[in-house]
Amino acid sequence: MAVYTQVDNEALETFLSLYNIGSLLSFKGIAEGVENSNYLLHTDAGTYILTLYEKRVDASDLPFFLGLMNHLAAKGFACPTPVRQSSGTMLGTLAGRPAAIVSFLEGVWLRKSLPRHCAELGAGLAAMHIAGADFEVTRPNALSVPGWRPLYDACNGRADEAIPGLSQEIEQELSFFEQNWPTNLPSGVIHADLFPDNVFFIHDKLSGFIDFYFACNDAFVYDIAICLNAWCFERDGAFNISKARSLLQAYTQVRPLSADELTALPLFARGSALRFLLTRTYDWINHPEGALVRPKDPRECLKQMRFHKDVTSPAAYGLDY
Amino acid sequence: MAVYTQVDNEALETFLSLYNIGSLLSFKGIAEGVENSNYLLHTDAGTYILTLYEKRVDASDLPFFLGLMNHLAAKGFACPTPVRQSSGTMLGTLAGRPAAIVSFLEGVWLRKSLPRHCAELGAGLAAMHIAGADFEVTRPNALSVPGWRPLYDACNGRADEAIPGLSQEIEQELSFFEQNWPTNLPSGVIHADLFPDNVFFIHDKLSGFIDFYFACNDAFVYDIAICLNAWCFERDGAFNISKARSLLQAYTQVRPLSADELTALPLFARGSALRFLLTRTYDWINHPEGALVRPKDPRECLKQMRFHKDVTSPAAYGLDY
Repeated sequence: MAVYTQVDNEALETFLSLYNIGSLLSFKGIAEGVENSNYLLHTDAGTYILTLYEKRVDASDLPFFLGLMNHLAAKGFACPTPVRQSSGTMLGTLAGRPAAIVSFLEGVWLRKSLPRHCAELGAGLAAMHIAGADFEVTRPNALSVPGWRPLYDACNGRADEAIPGLSQEIEQELSFFEQNWPTNLPSGVIHADLFPDNVFFIHDKLSGFIDFYFACNDAFVYDIAICLNAWCFERDGAFNISKARSLLQAYTQVRPLSADELTALPLFARGSALRFLLTRTYDWINHPEGALVRPKDPRECLKQMRFHKDVTSPAAYGLDY
Repeated sequence: MAVYTQVDNEALETFLSLYNIGSLLSFKGIAEGVENSNYLLHTDAGTYILTLYEKRVDASDLPFFLGLMNHLAAKGFACPTPVRQSSGTMLGTLAGRPAAIVSFLEGVWLRKSLPRHCAELGAGLAAMHIAGADFEVTRPNALSVPGWRPLYDACNGRADEAIPGLSQEIEQELSFFEQNWPTNLPSGVIHADLFPDNVFFIHDKLSGFIDFYFACNDAFVYDIAICLNAWCFERDGAFNISKARSLLQAYTQVRPLSADELTALPLFARGSALRFLLTRTYDWINHPEGALVRPKDPRECLKQMRFHKDVTSPAAYGLDY
């Protein structure tokens, strides 16, 4: 929620001269994005987002992220589209940082969602999975099972400071998943971070996805599982089966799920809850005293993980099975 | 440099329904403004700024500020124009805060200015003074001589913590100004905070002024004095007489200065340096440890104050006199 790198008008005008999008009318730093600095940019030619990639983003991943957005947009999937410099490159340098300009995607993210929004999300997610199928660059998922134990180890045995008893529960889950994680499921490019603030709507209709900076190659069902956790639990922790049904039905109407995928869904939902439990626990115990940004509550993910552990059939998610 | 109050899409949509500017397409919190929360807003009808007024702004002043922007815009002066609700009011309530929507003013603020930009500023300032002449609401300048001593007293004798010896120098200046402050100079609405970040340019031409939240009634020469300090000193503290000359010549071509105003200019320049020295000293000694925003350096104003104290004629500002 901050602009980490300040850009001055002269440097930006020089940078813009490398593009064919007219000259600068205005730019404003926007309070969005935890990882990067973002500016909303007006030129003679239209409205854009300028992103400066900060240190937490591995610059070697940028061709994947920008290439993916470009690929999806070319397939008609609604997402920010990287603008090329006259030289053809999508990635430049500004204020000492890797930087890119993408088209501005209209839409607002929903603070409260209804089942019909989850249906929009599900159909959009399936469309994204199909549109990304022939994208040729790959990026492994750093936050799947092999990445979880290092993340847990980085908590230095302090997980119980976030939630008493958490260490033991995480260790049990890690051991379980290290021995029971399905492979050979249908895979491709997944977004891997489709929380509500990355999904835009206009008048109750999906207008597109943003923030592809966790995108990677993995089982499609991992993406669905993340959405189940991010969209289908109420603030009090209760699972909303109507939302899950809407999401899954809409998804399968666009891209049917195989029997293997359906069977694996509860396990992936439990695993994706663990993945966010781990990063939130890490952030919780490493949170600087008095910092402006409140860390997200790991308790939410723990409850979800326990919920999915008890699920024995995808029928629990509202599917006829 | 922050968004203090979070707005959710539903509350914003309800708020927008009070206006005739179409429905919501997107909104982004922008990292501008120290006092208020600002959002850049897209609707079917165009681009706007939504401002939520935070506690540091006295709500009883808002009709003056909004009325002034409305008045200036109606006179053809380029500044954000408040949008009226269907009921006619320019001021509403959103997320528990007084809130207004204004038109979006294109332009960038200059991190480095040249004499030609100072000429644009001078001509614009004179045009604003003329356009505001018949605005009928008034607001006294809380940061003129009578306001300075309370501000100094609020520093609790700690000014020397900012700059050794500062207390004594401020006390001498306060006593001097309390006995030697010209009255009866041509007066009207002044902006009172025309630092570079409040002055927008497109392709080296002035596109308008923003942030009228210090505007008040006072001598026009006070506004000119603030601009001399804000625009005509280099980073190393050196006075740039070419910039001052450009600013003043362009101003006087639009609104000639009387002999009294010219004579008073060095005193107002010295006084306006003291005014910002006082607020910066207060902010410096009351700055929370480790806060994100670095307080502005009061030393800059002190040097300016000393410079103007030695000026014996407006010829020092590049005017033929």
